[in-house]
Amino acid sequence: MAFLRNAWYVAAWSNEVSDNLLTRKILGEQVLLYRDGAGELVATTNVCPHRFAPLNMGRVVDGAIECPYHGLRFDASGQCVYNPDGDGAVPVNARLKTYPVEERLGAAWIWMGDPAKIDLAMIPDFEFLDDPAYHAVTGLIHVRANYRLITDNLMDQAHLHMVHNTTLACDMVRRATTQLVRESDGTIWANRLGEAGETPAIFQMMWQANRGPIEGDFDHWVESGWKAPAFVRNNTGVAPHGRPREEGLETKNAHLLTPETETTTHYFWAISRTFDLNNPELDANIRIGTEHAFINEDEVILHGVQEMMDGQDFWSLRPALMQADVGAVQLRRALDKRITAEQAEASASDETSSARRSAEPVA
Amino acid sequence: MAFLRNAWYVAAWSNEVSDNLLTRKILGEQVLLYRDGAGELVATTNVCPHRFAPLNMGRVVDGAIECPYHGLRFDASGQCVYNPDGDGAVPVNARLKTYPVEERLGAAWIWMGDPAKIDLAMIPDFEFLDDPAYHAVTGLIHVRANYRLITDNLMDQAHLHMVHNTTLACDMVRRATTQLVRESDGTIWANRLGEAGETPAIFQMMWQANRGPIEGDFDHWVESGWKAPAFVRNNTGVAPHGRPREEGLETKNAHLLTPETETTTHYFWAISRTFDLNNPELDANIRIGTEHAFINEDEVILHGVQEMMDGQDFWSLRPALMQADVGAVQLRRALDKRITAEQAEASASDETSSARRSAEPVA
Amino acid sequence: MAFLRNAWYVAAWSNEVSDNLLTRKILGEQVLLYRDGAGELVATTNVCPHRFAPLNMGRVVDGAIECPYHGLRFDASGQCVYNPDGDGAVPVNARLKTYPVEERLGAAWIWMGDPAKIDLAMIPDFEFLDDPAYHAVTGLIHVRANYRLITDNLMDQAHLHMVHNTTLACDMVRRATTQLVRESDGTIWANRLGEAGETPAIFQMMWQANRGPIEGDFDHWVESGWKAPAFVRNNTGVAPHGRPREEGLETKNAHLLTPETETTTHYFWAISRTFDLNNPELDANIRIGTEHAFINEDEVILHGVQEMMDGQDFWSLRPALMQADVGAVQLRRALDKRITAEQAEASASDETSSARRSAEPVA
Repeated sequence: MAFLRNAWYVAAWSNEVSDNLLTRKILGEQVLLYRDGAGELVATTNVCPHRFAPLNMGRVVDGAIECPYHGLRFDASGQCVYNPDGDGAVPVNARLKTYPVEERLGAAWIWMGDPAKIDLAMIPDFEFLDDPAYHAVTGLIHVRANYRLITDNLMDQAHLHMVHNTTLACDMVRRATTQLVRESDGTIWANRLGEAGETPAIFQMMWQANRGPIEGDFDHWVESGWKAPAFVRNNTGVAPHGRPREEGLETKNAHLLTPETETTTHYFWAISRTFDLNNPELDANIRIGTEHAFINEDEVILHGVQEMMDGQDFWSLRPALMQADVGAVQLRRALDKRITAEQAEASASDETSSARRSAEPVA
Repeated sequence: MAFLRNAWYVAAWSNEVSDNLLTRKILGEQVLLYRDGAGELVATTNVCPHRFAPLNMGRVVDGAIECPYHGLRFDASGQCVYNPDGDGAVPVNARLKTYPVEERLGAAWIWMGDPAKIDLAMIPDFEFLDDPAYHAVTGLIHVRANYRLITDNLMDQAHLHMVHNTTLACDMVRRATTQLVRESDGTIWANRLGEAGETPAIFQMMWQANRGPIEGDFDHWVESGWKAPAFVRNNTGVAPHGRPREEGLETKNAHLLTPETETTTHYFWAISRTFDLNNPELDANIRIGTEHAFINEDEVILHGVQEMMDGQDFWSLRPALMQADVGAVQLRRALDKRITAEQAEASASDETSSARRSAEPVA
Repeated sequence: MAFLRNAWYVAAWSNEVSDNLLTRKILGEQVLLYRDGAGELVATTNVCPHRFAPLNMGRVVDGAIECPYHGLRFDASGQCVYNPDGDGAVPVNARLKTYPVEERLGAAWIWMGDPAKIDLAMIPDFEFLDDPAYHAVTGLIHVRANYRLITDNLMDQAHLHMVHNTTLACDMVRRATTQLVRESDGTIWANRLGEAGETPAIFQMMWQANRGPIEGDFDHWVESGWKAPAFVRNNTGVAPHGRPREEGLETKNAHLLTPETETTTHYFWAISRTFDLNNPELDANIRIGTEHAFINEDEVILHGVQEMMDGQDFWSLRPALMQADVGAVQLRRALDKRITAEQAEASASDETSSARRSAEPVA
């Protein structure tokens, strides 16, 4: 099982990309990111086509990438536009591979597959990342686990009371049943509603800061909606028991996973809120709390799982599944299907083009 | 050449195992060891059957292992007995693999093969480890070499004068010939007797402490008896030349090797004596001396041999053998034969069960 | 594409080899180097044929290598000449593999291939390393790149202005065209001549120290001559514009590359001059400058290229070549041809000897 290639992935948060070169390995490929003279996002391979030097050891000159080895320069289209050596003739086939990119929702999105199949509608509609009614705290974590172990984790409310037992744990959510909801656009939701009980510690803190003392019972919802290949949005909120959600507090969270390799993942996260928008101290606390939960609590376990699985296929290990796995199971099957279909199509197309190539003279 | 699986191996010294979880990789498998509520030894896989989390990151609750990821609990039989999530239903196939264990000779023994073939008589009869007439100093060393390089070393008196030249080296033993003795129970002995000369430094020290000044010539015997798969007992002692052994001093040593991986070994050792039983200072000196000899002298060489062999088969490298290798050669052949037989049997049985499975409907 | 085996490689500079054991991995093989009682160079495998201990953990006794494990001793021919154990019988097949060696040009040369094909004429005729009219500063650098990336680099004047922009960079050389010259002995030259301009910083320094102030324009030549498998000589010099080279200053440099593994190389270098022969301060400066240029400037890039290529074949990556690559391309093709021929011959001879072996009884 490899990666879904005809898909958008987050290459970086927008504010990470400047006119300096940023390298990031994505789906096993070394990608170079920068902004050209006009501030436009550019993504290319990190390998010079002349003698394969790593371009990130070079620099940006006049909006072009300059190779550190021989000084060849490549513009945003990947074309070699300058050779400082000899008569300055540019090598005929000196082109960098470029990747389609798109800047949306505060992130630099990259298309790793066949450019003919680009579909902007595949960027997930996590509108709250763009909505001025929301304020997002964002971050990036490096996880030593396959990205699918992280989506499983994000769709799974049953680990909250164990792994996050001082922050997100909530007894009424623990005892609830996961509801599976499928949307027509392919989104798969795993939702839990805890009714008439105590909210988790993190919402107690937010409620007290925003609304005052805790009085009476609350309801608490934790909803995770997955979109292919590896995007999960969360709605997590509390409201006084029986009252409409609008009367409560909610954060909307985005989890955008970009495979680095088969065993490591770039995990872009955002926690968005509609309350207390301009509060840098709250921002800092959200960052500290989120990084604590993801790095110290989840990441250690997920890395342990990665080591235990040791490259073996998830299904071949015959997991002893429970009710809370319903979302993860559905998304695994949905994604398996798409990857299998993509690979079948790619291999059919390879055969066609091999057949065509074999009829051509060899260069 | 893999491992002999239908065999007992030492998983731990008894005193290492408590009601906390201990992990140890054995024959390449992650094993978890602990004592249940009744103090009984339990050995299971370290991998949770639900989502493959490493159980050693969890804890023991009421004699059961609690998974750190979702809180499933498994009793000593491996059965899942508790699910804290939702309605508490236990996943149908949630069973931990357990390993047969037996506590003997101060050690926790584990059976890594087919449970139908368990034979307690295969635990070696190193009775001195249990005999109140003896006092044992024991330890555990991690060796960066295949276990068979260590058994070779233990059966080989020819390295003593080189590798242990300040402690165990003995000129009359060096010049002696190795006698091969086979016992009907499969034990293979490689024995040397040095006659009428100086004892090695380590016995001079012990003699002086126990018996007084060294006078006249001594005899010195060094005997190594191997049992499959990787147990060696040593009788090493000195007596005044020509006198019965009973008038001398002897230590009986046990070397119990448990493969961790193809290239690393857990080396459990015991040095047992019948004299000066209650002497903690002597115990400490024996520990220091033994660890010095095994870690600083043998281990470094054995690791070097491991690196030089680099995964190649011993026989394929055509060793230029000498007389002193007679014991090692015999035990290698005996063990090769047993491993080959076991693998042939396992593959025959695999074929049978595949045939049976292919007639069954797929789950 | 493996290594050319029927070839001489530098195993060490002569002054590195003494009566102590020196190990060096060459073409993936662990080689042991020392001088016997008569001061003669000896090269053997580092692996004891008895039980495969690393001999470099032993020592030289009476001109023989003593194994650290059992004390077997091997003379300069590889023959086991002493066994300290038992009756002292030497194991019948206890012979170390030895390698033909030759001391020339201040270096210890080793033949890694078929001894029947030894040809001393294949040691490159870099006579300046032996010529008393020259004084050489020599060194050894460990490069984390395949040796062919280094020969490419040494034949390529187009990287000087980028990678060595404060030392060797020279604008008139940058704008010049590389001239390819083939000699009848197989040497391939890539030469550049910069005319009527400024010399690079390093020659300005040397000219000022030796000849006085810089006046008027200079010519600057940079010539790289490759010999198989991996030897490059450089002639680099400056002279007042239009004047014969003899009126200028020149260094002759030798670059002698010995593959350690597919991805690492022992890089023996020498910078030789005819002027200011007895000047230890200049020697020190040349050493500092050379190591700076090779380690801090070239090595980092070459290691980056090695990582980017990640084991892929150079041609399969379809390099976008430029005029300055003409020398590297010619030498790559010449070497490819020789390696292919050698492998074809070896595989033909393997078949012959397999056929012969299969007719013999198995030992």
